[in-house]
Amino acid sequence: MKSYRKELWFEAKSRRQIFNITHEIETCLHESGIREGLCLVNAMHITASVYINDAEPGLYSDYERWLERLAPEKPYDQYAHNGYEDNADAHLKRTIMGREVVVAVTDGKLDFGPWEQIHYYELDGKRKKRALVKIIGE
Amino acid sequence: MKSYRKELWFEAKSRRQIFNITHEIETCLHESGIREGLCLVNAMHITASVYINDAEPGLYSDYERWLERLAPEKPYDQYAHNGYEDNADAHLKRTIMGREVVVAVTDGKLDFGPWEQIHYYELDGKRKKRALVKIIGE
Amino acid sequence: MKSYRKELWFEAKSRRQIFNITHEIETCLHESGIREGLCLVNAMHITASVYINDAEPGLYSDYERWLERLAPEKPYDQYAHNGYEDNADAHLKRTIMGREVVVAVTDGKLDFGPWEQIHYYELDGKRKKRALVKIIGE
Repeated sequence: MKSYRKELWFEAKSRRQIFNITHEIETCLHESGIREGLCLVNAMHITASVYINDAEPGLYSDYERWLERLAPEKPYDQYAHNGYEDNADAHLKRTIMGREVVVAVTDGKLDFGPWEQIHYYELDGKRKKRALVKIIGE
Repeated sequence: MKSYRKELWFEAKSRRQIFNITHEIETCLHESGIREGLCLVNAMHITASVYINDAEPGLYSDYERWLERLAPEKPYDQYAHNGYEDNADAHLKRTIMGREVVVAVTDGKLDFGPWEQIHYYELDGKRKKRALVKIIGE
Repeated sequence: MKSYRKELWFEAKSRRQIFNITHEIETCLHESGIREGLCLVNAMHITASVYINDAEPGLYSDYERWLERLAPEKPYDQYAHNGYEDNADAHLKRTIMGREVVVAVTDGKLDFGPWEQIHYYELDGKRKKRALVKIIGE
């Protein structure tokens, strides 16, 4: 069994930002030399998400509005977590979006349907944060 | 390390439909010959979900009503994604339900608790769509 | 390829309770002897969750209030699932929180960012229930 590990770094200019990281993950897979296996991609921070969906700007803005409705950022004092911090909403929004994805690796490629794209969703940005790529197989 | 791959096809008659696919996944596992490992099952489309929960008709209808409350289908023009399409709600509903499940394989069986059942949840149906089964182990 | 399996048992005193199980999972990983691979931790019951987020009491209480807003426990008769049971809300809350986590194993350790902690979230307690730990790798 082979294994491969890489950290991907992000620095969002704003509090929230969506990055399409599909191409970076394909590069990782190529570097790994793994042909059959599983590829895990997860946020290493608890106020960010890695998720799979369409790379479509309309959907990105729908996510923004929808998450704000389900877990509003403000008022900050509605959350017990916001004693020293103001990011409780980011913990909840990331819970909806999910921490990680697991993707099949087949014949040296990400085994995807037609519109699947991997995204890193920063929910509490303006600082350097990471996602982890771990691939196992052979 | 062995690996196994199979696509499962679905064609829902209505916009939304839940399929219990536990038996199909058990058949895949048997075909794979894998005794110890991990089994990934994921929707290959971004408006469908693979999830694990009870195979109970009351719960199925609760999911329908609950998802409609959290991410309503209509009015279609509430979503930026709905320029040429009308399925933005399906992207959001699938985000709640999740894209994939990873199940332990132990002694040649899906290593499940008493009520765990794998479902494919079609959220934008009336056409042919797929789920992917990938099993690795030995 | 090596594989390791263990069940972790819980008995929550109340209907809902959050357990930080990070240390137990680290112990499992040590017992497994696996240095590189993937670690799956999942609830074996469909009214409980295994999730990763901050081990912070304020956030725990935010989760409680937030999940109750998204999927209220009462009135019980709002859910079709609640014929003989009263736990439909637990099925829905667990859907938000997720069934499972997959964690990278690198150099014999859980490959975590600075604040990642694994939790078992009991959503329909007062009885004995289980989570499953499955580690594969070498």
